[in-house]
Amino acid sequence: MKETISIALAQMEVKPGRPGENAARMLQLIGEARQAGARLVAFPEMAIPGYLLGDEWERPAFLRECESAGAAVIAASQGLTLLFGNVAMDWGRRNEDGRVRKYNALFAAEDGRLLAPDNGTGYPFVIKTLMPNYREFDDSRHFYDLRKLALETARPVADLLAPVVTRVGRIGAMLCEDAWDADYGCSPAQVLAAKRVDLLVNLSCSPYTFNKNHKRNRLFSALATTHGKPVVYVNAVGIQNNGKTVFTFDGGTAVYAPGGRVVEGPPAFEEGLLRLDVPLAPGAAFGRPVEFREDGIADLFRAVSTGTRRFMALCGVKRVVVGVSGGIDSAVVAALYRNLLAPGDLILVNMPGPFTSPRTRKLAAGLAGALGCPYGEIPIQPSVAASRAQLEGFRMASPDGALVETLRLTDFVMENVQARDRSARILSAVAASVGGVFTCNANKSELTVGYSTLYGDLGGYLANIADLWKGEVYALARHLNEQVFGRPVIPEGIFTVMPSAELSAAQNVEEGKGDPLQYPYHDCLFRSWVEAWNRTTPEDILAWYAAGELETRLHYEGKVAERFPDARSFIADLERWWNQYQGLGVAKRIQAPPVLGVKRRAFGFDHRESQLGVHYTARYQELKNDLLKENGG
Amino acid sequence: MKETISIALAQMEVKPGRPGENAARMLQLIGEARQAGARLVAFPEMAIPGYLLGDEWERPAFLRECESAGAAVIAASQGLTLLFGNVAMDWGRRNEDGRVRKYNALFAAEDGRLLAPDNGTGYPFVIKTLMPNYREFDDSRHFYDLRKLALETARPVADLLAPVVTRVGRIGAMLCEDAWDADYGCSPAQVLAAKRVDLLVNLSCSPYTFNKNHKRNRLFSALATTHGKPVVYVNAVGIQNNGKTVFTFDGGTAVYAPGGRVVEGPPAFEEGLLRLDVPLAPGAAFGRPVEFREDGIADLFRAVSTGTRRFMALCGVKRVVVGVSGGIDSAVVAALYRNLLAPGDLILVNMPGPFTSPRTRKLAAGLAGALGCPYGEIPIQPSVAASRAQLEGFRMASPDGALVETLRLTDFVMENVQARDRSARILSAVAASVGGVFTCNANKSELTVGYSTLYGDLGGYLANIADLWKGEVYALARHLNEQVFGRPVIPEGIFTVMPSAELSAAQNVEEGKGDPLQYPYHDCLFRSWVEAWNRTTPEDILAWYAAGELETRLHYEGKVAERFPDARSFIADLERWWNQYQGLGVAKRIQAPPVLGVKRRAFGFDHRESQLGVHYTARYQELKNDLLKENGG
Repeated sequence: MKETISIALAQMEVKPGRPGENAARMLQLIGEARQAGARLVAFPEMAIPGYLLGDEWERPAFLRECESAGAAVIAASQGLTLLFGNVAMDWGRRNEDGRVRKYNALFAAEDGRLLAPDNGTGYPFVIKTLMPNYREFDDSRHFYDLRKLALETARPVADLLAPVVTRVGRIGAMLCEDAWDADYGCSPAQVLAAKRVDLLVNLSCSPYTFNKNHKRNRLFSALATTHGKPVVYVNAVGIQNNGKTVFTFDGGTAVYAPGGRVVEGPPAFEEGLLRLDVPLAPGAAFGRPVEFREDGIADLFRAVSTGTRRFMALCGVKRVVVGVSGGIDSAVVAALYRNLLAPGDLILVNMPGPFTSPRTRKLAAGLAGALGCPYGEIPIQPSVAASRAQLEGFRMASPDGALVETLRLTDFVMENVQARDRSARILSAVAASVGGVFTCNANKSELTVGYSTLYGDLGGYLANIADLWKGEVYALARHLNEQVFGRPVIPEGIFTVMPSAELSAAQNVEEGKGDPLQYPYHDCLFRSWVEAWNRTTPEDILAWYAAGELETRLHYEGKVAERFPDARSFIADLERWWNQYQGLGVAKRIQAPPVLGVKRRAFGFDHRESQLGVHYTARYQELKNDLLKENGG
Repeated sequence: MKETISIALAQMEVKPGRPGENAARMLQLIGEARQAGARLVAFPEMAIPGYLLGDEWERPAFLRECESAGAAVIAASQGLTLLFGNVAMDWGRRNEDGRVRKYNALFAAEDGRLLAPDNGTGYPFVIKTLMPNYREFDDSRHFYDLRKLALETARPVADLLAPVVTRVGRIGAMLCEDAWDADYGCSPAQVLAAKRVDLLVNLSCSPYTFNKNHKRNRLFSALATTHGKPVVYVNAVGIQNNGKTVFTFDGGTAVYAPGGRVVEGPPAFEEGLLRLDVPLAPGAAFGRPVEFREDGIADLFRAVSTGTRRFMALCGVKRVVVGVSGGIDSAVVAALYRNLLAPGDLILVNMPGPFTSPRTRKLAAGLAGALGCPYGEIPIQPSVAASRAQLEGFRMASPDGALVETLRLTDFVMENVQARDRSARILSAVAASVGGVFTCNANKSELTVGYSTLYGDLGGYLANIADLWKGEVYALARHLNEQVFGRPVIPEGIFTVMPSAELSAAQNVEEGKGDPLQYPYHDCLFRSWVEAWNRTTPEDILAWYAAGELETRLHYEGKVAERFPDARSFIADLERWWNQYQGLGVAKRIQAPPVLGVKRRAFGFDHRESQLGVHYTARYQELKNDLLKENGG
């Protein structure tokens, strides 16, 4: 055994669906690693094809391109030991869906030749054993795994897990989930470690999720300590998406030493090489103590900002139009884009309507002034009035005149007419005419209960703050002012004005009126419905309310009784928002723009939903009846 | 062994996410079956919870309700043998995602007690072995399967597959995919049949897919013949959805006899009981010869019509507004709804614009006349002109005046302004004011290449013909006139007018101009991209074109050379539409309404897509260069 291994870990920006480009970038990085004296070079999982590709995996032309791109990388391993992830094809066998057999595989190569693990499968690559099928992951939809291969070939899984024997040492090679084995009946790391390895390697393609990094540090650090071996972790940067949800990849590439130490690679979200001579002697300590830090608003900012920037690049977006209302959400979105674009490429539009207050109008202008962008006020009163004049009282009849329908536009209908006039008429046309796109400024609280208008403020090319609760939007606004810009680009008045859609007289901010959502209580309630590990329903909420545990359970620091004087008002509020969440809310999310997911359970492909209509369990009805009886109901 | 088994198979409408309602309906059907003298009563897979529920499976309150609803059904098995599907919980173990252990299970009960298969698992239910993870199915996301349990308990899968021993006989019990074993390493049916069973039972929750029924007949008939035992198949009716895609369930409940015979249950899509005394003597022939019939337009009509009706009920929709342009798509949608609604609840609106021809306007009025619905013409010229006047030349400047943006609305921008004016201004307001919804009339050809306007004609509450190619829409129109209505409710002129969006002078139908899509060629091309088993890309298309095989490969009955005189024009067309399909088409589908899926690979959750941008493989570029060189390019 050598005393050290000279490694270079490539925290690479993987472009999903671009095997040729990814392979070309890998060849460059191999060159750099060689220059820097590395003997072992490792890339992320699925470095060639990308990972979150929808059903792109069903196109044979794409799969063939992945194979040939992989071959080019393998050929570049002269004098090196190379590890990288790619899809591995067995054109002679089938997946369980009847399509061609595909493995999520780790390739090891030296001098242009593949190094097969000594496991008797006949495959010259390592096959992923554990398949994530939760959140945004669909591994079993596309890939055959090592456990299925074990069943198919009637051999124990442990037999098929074998180290890769390389020039630089015996490598226990894993792909991402293989190390996250807590809830699986099988631990690839443990099996491999027992087969005499010099180091464990984990190639990943793992998206950023708020507070996942410290779990990752904990897990890989424990792995190094348990087995007394260095653990190498390589993860991609970039963005990948599943249509409805866009995910950022932060990297976190590192080498974990036994005993709670680590050498970290390039900064989060940035491409780069981690070059290191890893000591292999048992007990050799290296690196600094590993941190188990909770994420904060700065991490969220970085994820949202990087994700937005890369999504713009993916879609070829160079100019952005933001409708600024004078409220916090649109202000944060405008400031986020201002940080990514030249001032001339961010166009801000305020669209005052019949219920817009002078106050928010002034705040919007103040924001535009601070950001220094082209700004215009385009009123909606004339067009909304014209629509009303055209449609109110309009009469439609059947040919024989027997059936007559006369249109009546209520105040509520007119609220949505205003919202659609802003987005579908003005912002869409402005964006098209300046050669850009317009943004969706919805936050997660609004998105949860569908507090927005379809084809209105729910329109846009990307909803980049739609995975943040209202409270997090305010925190991000402070962070933008204090840390990102170092000056109050978001005027203080925007923090203090009552959040309001300003679509009716009942939402007059000058009179302190506005949206019916009460923060932070509703943030806490909705979080328990959407993000909690055991997702709650009104049944759980009411049981906690009855037991006096609600504040603790929801991590709500206020007093529920101060908001709702009795059970009747509490239940009315609960049902109002649950009806919205499960009813129109779902219908609206189906037609919502892509959401930039940065936390656990982003709407879309992470938190998947069917339209099921609104449902209350029988137990809920009992609890409710009991409470209302006590309440003198 | 008894000579016959008296069975009743419940082709039940399963309401997704409604355990209590489903259990109540099951109790009714058990009563009917008992009255009819049945000794064995069987219900579909997941009859209690429903099946396509998104992440509803993560709510413990829902899971508890499924358990208690299941207990009520089990209690109703006095004097009967009962088989039904439900989620089975093991609150003490975990799924691989760390959440509570859930099985997709088959429960067998007699006299209020569960009958456990004799397999040593300790579980008193049959666990699904094969998990579909393709198309709209996500089984491994939610359920632990028998193969994983075999690995976990270190026992062979075949040991865990055991018949259920009931009063009426030894039953080889399976759930849906368990019988569709062609591409799995394991055949539950074969293992069970070898363990001495009297009959095989398959409980399913399997959506309708065009031409899947004859495969089902073939498979289950072969199973009966191979094993010389009757095979009982029970499937649900109703609709279930995964948000972006709505699926219909057609039932097809039947008993297959050995030797290619069958007794069929209630009609497709309809609830009912199949009551039969099944002879068990080897070689006993019963039923009529099983048919292997291909589906036709009547089947598609039934699926679309039933699906639409049930989706309206799910969403509580009672009134529908259809924007009728005088073209075929909106005419078919209007006729479909007219067949489901009283004439006064279907409101038809024609919205003539600057480029609307007298011809289509007259056709729309003719359609409304034939359908006998309230009808109105609401012009868009005034509002479109007002938008142009307000926005053209509008000047936006930065506070210091240094950055100036002046809006210019090109003809192309104005095309989309018209489309959005119709849907987001008029139809949305009309629908809201009559207390209804408006429809999306897009077909699959347009949806593939994004030939529609976001927040315009792509809006609506449901896209019920969006899984039909343009040619299928015409066929459905004929079927509606000839078979459904028995009179030409869709005027003949709508069949003959050139399809056109009528948004510009270049789309003037009076001059025989219209949409750039050429049918049926583009239908055939797009079908190969979306629905073909091995989904094609321009690389495959160009290779076939070069080899002179394109017509055969695409099942296109015309001559490609007659449409495209040379390789240059062929390639220009191919790239034009591929760019649309992979570029804006994906972005638009992300915000499209739910699609009613009736065929293989409906957009949304069946054919899953990521935004990857437009990509051509290296091999495509080579083929293109070769062809253009030959072409004198």
